[in-house]
Amino acid sequence: MMQTAPINPHLADTLLTVFDLAGTFVFALSGATKAVEHKLDLFGILVLCFAAGNSGGIARDIMIGALPPAAIAHWGYIAVSVLAGLITFFWYSVINRLSSPVLLFDAAGLALFVAAGTGKALAFHVGPVAAILFGTLTGIGGGMVRDLLVQEIPAVLRTDIYALAALIGAAAILAGRALQLPPFAASSLGAALCFGIRLGAMHYRWRLPSAGT
Amino acid sequence: MMQTAPINPHLADTLLTVFDLAGTFVFALSGATKAVEHKLDLFGILVLCFAAGNSGGIARDIMIGALPPAAIAHWGYIAVSVLAGLITFFWYSVINRLSSPVLLFDAAGLALFVAAGTGKALAFHVGPVAAILFGTLTGIGGGMVRDLLVQEIPAVLRTDIYALAALIGAAAILAGRALQLPPFAASSLGAALCFGIRLGAMHYRWRLPSAGT
Amino acid sequence: MMQTAPINPHLADTLLTVFDLAGTFVFALSGATKAVEHKLDLFGILVLCFAAGNSGGIARDIMIGALPPAAIAHWGYIAVSVLAGLITFFWYSVINRLSSPVLLFDAAGLALFVAAGTGKALAFHVGPVAAILFGTLTGIGGGMVRDLLVQEIPAVLRTDIYALAALIGAAAILAGRALQLPPFAASSLGAALCFGIRLGAMHYRWRLPSAGT
Repeated sequence: MMQTAPINPHLADTLLTVFDLAGTFVFALSGATKAVEHKLDLFGILVLCFAAGNSGGIARDIMIGALPPAAIAHWGYIAVSVLAGLITFFWYSVINRLSSPVLLFDAAGLALFVAAGTGKALAFHVGPVAAILFGTLTGIGGGMVRDLLVQEIPAVLRTDIYALAALIGAAAILAGRALQLPPFAASSLGAALCFGIRLGAMHYRWRLPSAGT
Repeated sequence: MMQTAPINPHLADTLLTVFDLAGTFVFALSGATKAVEHKLDLFGILVLCFAAGNSGGIARDIMIGALPPAAIAHWGYIAVSVLAGLITFFWYSVINRLSSPVLLFDAAGLALFVAAGTGKALAFHVGPVAAILFGTLTGIGGGMVRDLLVQEIPAVLRTDIYALAALIGAAAILAGRALQLPPFAASSLGAALCFGIRLGAMHYRWRLPSAGT
Repeated sequence: MMQTAPINPHLADTLLTVFDLAGTFVFALSGATKAVEHKLDLFGILVLCFAAGNSGGIARDIMIGALPPAAIAHWGYIAVSVLAGLITFFWYSVINRLSSPVLLFDAAGLALFVAAGTGKALAFHVGPVAAILFGTLTGIGGGMVRDLLVQEIPAVLRTDIYALAALIGAAAILAGRALQLPPFAASSLGAALCFGIRLGAMHYRWRLPSAGT
């Protein structure tokens, strides 16, 4: 098991919570815009916000034994989910004027959740491979549930370099920790790398090969 | 954390179990009728019965740490699920003659599961906001999984005032407990309120607003 | 609770792990071939491999409290999942020449996972009914998630005698244990019975009745 650098635990907790709540907010925005596209009513929007913003973290918390999951135990997560839903509901035309808002929020949420998920898994003393997997799963979980709930094949399966960006970001955090970077620096590095790769893949249409059928 | 009124724990357990098994039975009926509509064979019907009747409770039990989940540890849950499947299989024409049986069983299951889920979460000492969320999630989980398994967008997202009815019911139980009502009275009040709102929404076509796209 | 026969725990652990990894491999192959059919790219294939190969075991581990789940805590599971994905990616035409490879791998994975899931549940001291259910759920979980992720109604619901084969296999393992068979013999018997019933159902088109609508 990896020995993490000694840090102020309260500061680390605070940073983890900031990443987690920010990721929840932007994934909830992605859920809200998708809900509006599918013409769901106000409460349907809020349910999809909560599912998109919190499914990844709930799955992670269940699997590392952090029960009940933070998304349910702490009111902050439902509050930012509802806030994202209400903002989208009342100002959808503003949100929508941003180009491809679902994709952009999704990329930001992916990066934030990868950092938060990897950090929380390490705080629960899982090994480095498990921490990378938990970071990746935290990042892709919310979007998978969001897409499944409106009957779409999850973006993570169809989209070039999506889960791969999450995996690289999580691996970078582990590498940064191994190099004795402060946890916040390692997390920020991993999140920035994940976000950059994801944006680059969207903008330059980077592709992975498909099987020659 | 909310201090619950002192009660006879054995009586409370019994009442909780009755609500839980009754909810399982009616949700399993809703799963069975949907399975027959999709022309599944006998064992497919039973699988959908079990999933519809127990997914919400299993998710709740996993998240409050009540392992293994009651739906698997205690034979009663699989027994009532199978019973609901067999009844629907052999007397589908009778079940179907009731108008909109899926919707009616679904509403009753929602109300019973909200009461059982809220009560069990409180018994595991979660806070009041978490108890309301667990009650709501217990109520809507089974129907979500049922619908996803037959490739439909879950009713909870499309249907006016569904999750909202669950949320109000769960909040009413917390309010009743705070007002020192006996747990059974608070649970019954919440279940009745949830069922009434859901039936009213179906009958009078109450609607929530959609985003002005 | 059933008293299991005294055995060499290390040997039993090894056998359990062999069944589990073999089941992961063949289910991952079934996920990979389905991913190629849906024209997913390389990393999408690997994600579907991991989901198909490990969802059943992850669900079982969460519900018996074996946290973090073996599929994430031990690198062997992701390694065989990735291996299955790469084999399918580079030699799809070979894999595909086998008739109905998804169905065949699926049947083998079902049998292996039923044996591994029942054995692990018993090792965590659940009762006999729960062990049968956990064995069945471990067997059918990966294929359900695999099919849901590519927006198909899960094979377990549509396919004649699928979950029933898993249930009979798991029940046979419990019967063998009750008859004091060595655990490996009981597990092999149950797996062979499950596989045989599944192949027989596919080959002879055994059917269960549907409700007379």
